[in-house]
Amino acid sequence: MTLFGLENLPYGVFSTADGVRRIGVRLGGTVRDVSAIDDALRQPTLNALMALGRPRWTEIRSRITEVAPLSPAIPLAEVRLHLPFDVADYTDFYSSEHHAANVSRILRPQRPGLPAAWKHLPIGYHGRSGTVVVSGTPVERPHGQLAEGVFGPSARLDIEAEVGFVVGVPGRRIPTGRFAEHVFGVVLVNDWSARDIQAFEYQPLGPFLAKSFATSVSPWVVPLDAFATFPAVVQEPRPVSYLLPPGPALDVQLRVEWNGTEVSTPPYAQMYWTAAQQLAHLTVNGASVRTGDLYASGTVSGPSRGEAGSFLELTSNGTEPVKLADGSVRGFLLDGDTVTISATATGAAGTTIGLGSVTGTVCP
Amino acid sequence: MTLFGLENLPYGVFSTADGVRRIGVRLGGTVRDVSAIDDALRQPTLNALMALGRPRWTEIRSRITEVAPLSPAIPLAEVRLHLPFDVADYTDFYSSEHHAANVSRILRPQRPGLPAAWKHLPIGYHGRSGTVVVSGTPVERPHGQLAEGVFGPSARLDIEAEVGFVVGVPGRRIPTGRFAEHVFGVVLVNDWSARDIQAFEYQPLGPFLAKSFATSVSPWVVPLDAFATFPAVVQEPRPVSYLLPPGPALDVQLRVEWNGTEVSTPPYAQMYWTAAQQLAHLTVNGASVRTGDLYASGTVSGPSRGEAGSFLELTSNGTEPVKLADGSVRGFLLDGDTVTISATATGAAGTTIGLGSVTGTVCP
Repeated sequence: MTLFGLENLPYGVFSTADGVRRIGVRLGGTVRDVSAIDDALRQPTLNALMALGRPRWTEIRSRITEVAPLSPAIPLAEVRLHLPFDVADYTDFYSSEHHAANVSRILRPQRPGLPAAWKHLPIGYHGRSGTVVVSGTPVERPHGQLAEGVFGPSARLDIEAEVGFVVGVPGRRIPTGRFAEHVFGVVLVNDWSARDIQAFEYQPLGPFLAKSFATSVSPWVVPLDAFATFPAVVQEPRPVSYLLPPGPALDVQLRVEWNGTEVSTPPYAQMYWTAAQQLAHLTVNGASVRTGDLYASGTVSGPSRGEAGSFLELTSNGTEPVKLADGSVRGFLLDGDTVTISATATGAAGTTIGLGSVTGTVCP
Repeated sequence: MTLFGLENLPYGVFSTADGVRRIGVRLGGTVRDVSAIDDALRQPTLNALMALGRPRWTEIRSRITEVAPLSPAIPLAEVRLHLPFDVADYTDFYSSEHHAANVSRILRPQRPGLPAAWKHLPIGYHGRSGTVVVSGTPVERPHGQLAEGVFGPSARLDIEAEVGFVVGVPGRRIPTGRFAEHVFGVVLVNDWSARDIQAFEYQPLGPFLAKSFATSVSPWVVPLDAFATFPAVVQEPRPVSYLLPPGPALDVQLRVEWNGTEVSTPPYAQMYWTAAQQLAHLTVNGASVRTGDLYASGTVSGPSRGEAGSFLELTSNGTEPVKLADGSVRGFLLDGDTVTISATATGAAGTTIGLGSVTGTVCP
């Protein structure tokens, strides 16, 4: 049993000794070069493929299903994986009710509870696309103003475990029912966050330097076709019409490891707002999306401490440290720490598929 | 006397009947094709030129000063002007003290005064680069949630008159003293804003759909070399060291026309944070900037009503409408309204130079 069988076949961009970037799919522990199959695959990024649209995606995927098993198997250990697509705009949402409630309670104790608009629309903000990096890229600890007149390295460096959606086909005012016509596939996202910088800077325009230094994504883009779909969670009050029907939920189970110790298992299936609703919201004002736009779910947190998608929540803002396997304790990230977010999901064929992982090591 | 003499020579991208995009400079009321001068100018955008760096910019500008007057003069009326550069990341600041104080008073009367961090750092946020459009592009009135359960067209559509800075040379941690090595030139920006959508959505992550539908920029990028520089305003309390020295102020005088009636004259010279400080802040956390990054000053407002850079301020949130030349009154924008922001500045030679204008008409 593999998480990367023929029912998965995620796309990535790899290079071997010659340094040339090629498109491949993952099959088991190997990469298969699929660049010869179509002109859109003879490219250094997935963008041309992503722009083709769902009928061609289906056709090419079907062809790859036949050809990939017969292609030379290149062990994963022998390739370098690159950022799989050129990121156009990067947007991040805030769509886990548990996360939003936890953050309000921890950061705004004088006003706990969800922000007023939270159940009416998927709150989001724009991030920095130029600092989206592929898994494995070291993350330099950001500097910034931590309080009035205090400048230095962040002492509260955190992660946010998220699921990201990659737009293939451009559009405007995309109804929830047309989600699958526009979205090409799914990646894992770690939206690294400096909580001290964030707390000082975020009023009234939102987080800025606290998140713009790095956003890591997994190297494999899992096609939407590979996922089983489920009914979304019940939304009460009923959203306004452009957010209905809610579109499908995906059963993605995340796993966060801190220096090799599993510290949480955030359940994406429990997110309040679906990816289809996020895309409908993002475009309902007339804004366009382009090939390569990336939008992320927001931190995925479940109801229990062991399902927290951020260390802010996991350690109650550092006040209740976690113990790692080596006996050391952590509130926030120390230099040299490595965080790996991996995930599996229920696949369209009913089996479990892998999304791979997104990893990063903090350096000074 | 022209605002577009040899001491100005802004760059733009134009096409004539054949539809091919070429790089030109503006001289008086004409465009001069400069694409034959250098490979970096034989391009459909300014990005390759912008990536060359200041020594080459100076050399090419010097060559253009000799060649442009001898080149065929194409009347402006005969060309179409395009978005002059591919926008990488778009960032917007909030650096006019008068604007920030006005907005706090109007939108947060329970907590007037500047946000706590305002005098410690240039507050900013990321916008949507995919919806940056060139002057003249019609602006569709955005739809969104205006209050709980209320979805429809914005009834409080506004402008923000701003000055934008275009990054040429990539970098990280750019000290204020290296501003001119990285920034290629200056444009005018209208950051269209839907105040009702903004008020409902902006807590806690900042404006999102209220601003993402369109941001208009002027077609001419005025090289930094064309501007005279002046001392920045006195900053008290003294900023932390990465924001010092403050770098130069530019004496740009904006002019806002609403359906042809001049309604305000925002003074950019009075901005609190300089463009050099904004770039230093944007990159101090380790974030990189790329060729084509655009960052804008934030709404430029002076101390008096007639110097407001937004209609929110000009009309006190619609409660004190302005009278236009045709006798009609306005609180916010109506369908069919046209706003033109133009500007002049003190040039390096001591003469007045033009920045052209950014215009847009609201359609339903």
